[in-house]
Amino acid sequence: MKSIEWLGNILRILDQTKLPRETAYRDAKSYEEVAEAIEKMEVRGAPAIGAAVAYGYVLGALEYNGPRQGLTDFMETVQGRLAQTRPTAVNLFWALRRMEDRLRDCWEIEDLDGVRKALIEEADRIAEDDRRMNRLIGELGNEVVPEKGNILTHCNAGALATVEYGTALSVIRTAYSSGKSIHVYADETRPLLQGARLTALELMNDKIPVTLIADNMAGSLMQQGKVDLVIVGADRIAANGDTANKIGTYSLAVLAQAHEVPFYVAAPTSTIDLKVATGQEIPIEERPAKEMKECFGVPMAPEDVNVYNPAFDVTPAKYITGIITEKGIVTAPYSVNLLKLMVRS
Amino acid sequence: MKSIEWLGNILRILDQTKLPRETAYRDAKSYEEVAEAIEKMEVRGAPAIGAAVAYGYVLGALEYNGPRQGLTDFMETVQGRLAQTRPTAVNLFWALRRMEDRLRDCWEIEDLDGVRKALIEEADRIAEDDRRMNRLIGELGNEVVPEKGNILTHCNAGALATVEYGTALSVIRTAYSSGKSIHVYADETRPLLQGARLTALELMNDKIPVTLIADNMAGSLMQQGKVDLVIVGADRIAANGDTANKIGTYSLAVLAQAHEVPFYVAAPTSTIDLKVATGQEIPIEERPAKEMKECFGVPMAPEDVNVYNPAFDVTPAKYITGIITEKGIVTAPYSVNLLKLMVRS
Repeated sequence: MKSIEWLGNILRILDQTKLPRETAYRDAKSYEEVAEAIEKMEVRGAPAIGAAVAYGYVLGALEYNGPRQGLTDFMETVQGRLAQTRPTAVNLFWALRRMEDRLRDCWEIEDLDGVRKALIEEADRIAEDDRRMNRLIGELGNEVVPEKGNILTHCNAGALATVEYGTALSVIRTAYSSGKSIHVYADETRPLLQGARLTALELMNDKIPVTLIADNMAGSLMQQGKVDLVIVGADRIAANGDTANKIGTYSLAVLAQAHEVPFYVAAPTSTIDLKVATGQEIPIEERPAKEMKECFGVPMAPEDVNVYNPAFDVTPAKYITGIITEKGIVTAPYSVNLLKLMVRS
Repeated sequence: MKSIEWLGNILRILDQTKLPRETAYRDAKSYEEVAEAIEKMEVRGAPAIGAAVAYGYVLGALEYNGPRQGLTDFMETVQGRLAQTRPTAVNLFWALRRMEDRLRDCWEIEDLDGVRKALIEEADRIAEDDRRMNRLIGELGNEVVPEKGNILTHCNAGALATVEYGTALSVIRTAYSSGKSIHVYADETRPLLQGARLTALELMNDKIPVTLIADNMAGSLMQQGKVDLVIVGADRIAANGDTANKIGTYSLAVLAQAHEVPFYVAAPTSTIDLKVATGQEIPIEERPAKEMKECFGVPMAPEDVNVYNPAFDVTPAKYITGIITEKGIVTAPYSVNLLKLMVRS
């Protein structure tokens, strides 16, 4: 099960909104289709979105059939559209910047096909970097996983949220395959149930013991001493370590601290945004009310009820035991240590 | 919308599992039907369950058509069946004990119809007591509600959870009708969505401003300073003030304390169980896995996923600002003050 796959001139996107009931794909042939797939959350997860927009950018370049000198302007339009899809995950903007830089570096290439080839190479590199970083996150993160115990995770920070392996789930996969006796509690993660639909599915496919819980059960499990470690992914990490992630992460972090349970964030360095000083500056997307009122099209609340549906919340750095990246595990003081990490080659 | 209604020889039960999509009733003619309706949560909420079993007991007495001297044995069977429906809410056992006591007091009555009349009178009194207590809870509880602000509630502690008015929602209703500018955040309350389906509906019917949120959003709202007060119901309160209530309540209480938000429990004294010293002794019901894997029959998780589905959790007394009862608002030290309250006439 791959979140995205580049087929030469098509981006095959696994439609995650239909899982686990149906395995359906969207074969995106235009940047507009990629933008739509991201908006509808057919592809989601900060690293997967990053790679998807990179290929979306490539599709834009393939669609363009004007003169060479008009390409830059057209690609600005493409970039603008892709940048408008979702505001919180910084990997999206990071990947678009990489593509934009690569396009700029092509200024001496006169034929369109030569430029396109370079852009495909860059998108492939972004995808390959993601795979490599996730592997490393798993290996490095395994250090914080006990030999035996229960790990709680929220939303889906798995293979489906990335190009491969996952972030939080890469740590869990590595720990499990290294022989540790672990069991995972997966928060179902309302409203879109990424935990129930995606995380449970991924772990079951890998034969890793998993138990599905409702989001509101996590505190009670911690009270009973049944959670030894919390690992989640991230959508954007500010320079001071404040972390935006799926709504509900903040509650988990406060509960973890109250129960003295270590709370880790696992994310590639492409998720770290040093241009944002604190979590308060991270834009938080609000999603359609419909997501809260329906489940697979079945209404489950009064039709005209007022709804609050933020997709993310911000966990202040003080609740985070460590941030697991491909370059190492960062701990407090984050302002100093994240900066050190990012300048390290 | 009445949770239950006694129609002379039938208990009309509003099937709350179908709300808000459908307003359907079960006209229970036997104690077994009442037991089933409770097990399936067609009628739910500790006070409503208490009144329902009282009428279920009456239906048992109406079904019996043997000799007078055999009635006590038969009613023991009836009582045993009704007592087995749900283990946590103590109001169920409290109501059955009241019915059993009343039956014992009927020892001099020789005709079955005379006994039945007495039992109906007792069940009516239980229902009437509930209405009266809930009114008082609303009036007394209004004292803790600010003139203006946001109240968070979990699950449904409304008219539908009682015979009328509700407990937590009685406080909210009284505050609103006394002219206070309040707005309610209703936790949707997974897995059975009593907040989305029932609380939102009740408040909208009463024109009280309400916003539906997922359970995992409560912490983020508190972080943003958007919650001034939390009020929830209760299924059983131990002698030391520890309170069993719908799963998720404990998480809310920890979050409320971390954000210095007052956290109140509203419940009639029939919910207080002095025979239970602490919350650890309260039996916690586990519900079928299916409830977590489906929504109105639509599957939303891998079919064979392992599930943990406790219906309740226990909030230690130290997190509770006060317990609002019909006899007054109890605060710490609960061991002393709950005892004082219960011996007060």
